Amino acid sequence: MPTSEQEFLRVIDRRFPNTGPGLLLGRGDDCAILDPGGPFCVSTDIFVEDVHFRRSYFSPADIGHKALAAAASDLAGMAARPLGFALSLALPDDVGDGFLDEMLAGMAELAKRLGIPLVGGDLSRCAKLALDVVVFGTPGPSGRLLKRCAAKPGDALLLLGDIGLARAGLLELETFGCREANAWPAAVAAHLRPEPRIEEALTLAEVTTPDGPAISGLMDVSDGLARDLPRFLGPQLGAELSLCREDLSPEVAAFFTAHSQDPVEAAVLGGEDYALIASADKHRVAAVLAELPQTRVIGRVCSEPCLRLNSGQVLRQGFDHFAKPGPG
Amino acid sequence: MPTSEQEFLRVIDRRFPNTGPGLLLGRGDDCAILDPGGPFCVSTDIFVEDVHFRRSYFSPADIGHKALAAAASDLAGMAARPLGFALSLALPDDVGDGFLDEMLAGMAELAKRLGIPLVGGDLSRCAKLALDVVVFGTPGPSGRLLKRCAAKPGDALLLLGDIGLARAGLLELETFGCREANAWPAAVAAHLRPEPRIEEALTLAEVTTPDGPAISGLMDVSDGLARDLPRFLGPQLGAELSLCREDLSPEVAAFFTAHSQDPVEAAVLGGEDYALIASADKHRVAAVLAELPQTRVIGRVCSEPCLRLNSGQVLRQGFDHFAKPGPG
Repeated sequence: MPTSEQEFLRVIDRRFPNTGPGLLLGRGDDCAILDPGGPFCVSTDIFVEDVHFRRSYFSPADIGHKALAAAASDLAGMAARPLGFALSLALPDDVGDGFLDEMLAGMAELAKRLGIPLVGGDLSRCAKLALDVVVFGTPGPSGRLLKRCAAKPGDALLLLGDIGLARAGLLELETFGCREANAWPAAVAAHLRPEPRIEEALTLAEVTTPDGPAISGLMDVSDGLARDLPRFLGPQLGAELSLCREDLSPEVAAFFTAHSQDPVEAAVLGGEDYALIASADKHRVAAVLAELPQTRVIGRVCSEPCLRLNSGQVLRQGFDHFAKPGPG
Repeated sequence: MPTSEQEFLRVIDRRFPNTGPGLLLGRGDDCAILDPGGPFCVSTDIFVEDVHFRRSYFSPADIGHKALAAAASDLAGMAARPLGFALSLALPDDVGDGFLDEMLAGMAELAKRLGIPLVGGDLSRCAKLALDVVVFGTPGPSGRLLKRCAAKPGDALLLLGDIGLARAGLLELETFGCREANAWPAAVAAHLRPEPRIEEALTLAEVTTPDGPAISGLMDVSDGLARDLPRFLGPQLGAELSLCREDLSPEVAAFFTAHSQDPVEAAVLGGEDYALIASADKHRVAAVLAELPQTRVIGRVCSEPCLRLNSGQVLRQGFDHFAKPGPG
């Protein structure tokens, strides 16, 4: 643990550049000054030891990576381009300088790939390690920021990314308490090192047909599809999902089968997927698939405010960090 | 403690309006969208139980108030007008619904006075109560954001607000462990309920003479003058301070005298003053005093990088939350 704020700022300065395209004044004053060139969007994600992660199976670099990845995924959920981020860090006394530097290195590596400068933050001691990340973004080339509650009945529901994979990883890591020698490498990686889908989101926002933009609404799936879909659709609408084992990552199908759970239902419950859910006019879906062939059509929006899976079952609730004991 | 995120959001919605002049999209989506109409500034302030405050002598409303006040003081330090803020909240299990609501009410009361909408945030459980507040601001009527490290040798140093008063309050509260029946009401109030000096900062930025703007640099004093002045001046410059007991609040003079400390030295060490320090061309000081007669001229900037108090003593270090055990 650094012995002073000055020492900590030196560690930060070694890892994070203090310049960026929209950054008029970097770290070091009362405030940083950013020029978004128009509206900007903002989101906050708090990442707390023994609630969202455990030090027993997250490496320091995993912690730094995931704290920023989870926050940046909210930018993806608006189709926003990263502009900057702030980091507030609460450090327990037993966090050593090496741990801190590795954690910041993991965060800095992702920040570099995303092109997002660290513009400020704060530091405190605390009984638990906690990272609060605030991200700022601007509209991408499409000029649009895509919202929730914008789907229309009849729209197709599109999914980018795996659902259920991070949930399998969490269960595996919680069972064995470490990341070594596990049989589910993709699942474990999905839990420890999620990737915010910024580029795919920016591309989605740009897909246009002669009748207009293809995508009506967009959101990142962080609490599981079952919990996030009602937030995406709003109180007036529902959805009919069609999902089969072939829509899932092979590890999701195998993991939940091995644990005597229905893989499709487990995947829909999910949690920390950081996938993207989008709605598109059904006549414009082909244009999306032409641009992003990895997109899966997983159902359609309907006017009855109820979620059905494979034309039967009404979905249970998903994932609530706040209600749930233990990390994940 | 609320039983779900939905319940928590209902508490938030009861206390905080979800609209504001620069707010295009409020809380409830992946991101909020703000339109600053140009550059914006951002700062972050973390406020942690038993590091920055104790629940034994802060009321819930005091905690909510001070978390926002400390963050907003950084906007004052740039002469920025509040645009919006985000709140990340880490709640221990023993924080009840009544406590939470009172805390948010204390924050909401200040937010209303500052005209600053809550645009987002996040929530987690944690072993300690912690609030991370991120504030956004825009230039005021002057169109200027005022920085540190902008003073010139020969500039006058100006102070708005009391120094040492919050330090006296902290020492009193730490000694007696509660806010009742204390002999130093102004000191205790300065520690529990600091006021960000937004209006004075906006006015400072507007003071202009025929030769140009009066103020060259501005900063909020949060870690004590002794620690913050070198940050304000930068590595090349120093200052000669002239301060006597008459420059101090009567409670500061009396409190430190009663505790056998030199009041002037204690005031300069200070901590959590949330005063403003500014530099002004010496020929333009009169214009500042005409506009803001409560301004005190406390010294002058010199080209030797050293701080002297009353033409003798070289100042000791001030206040470092990070190095110091216990709150304050």
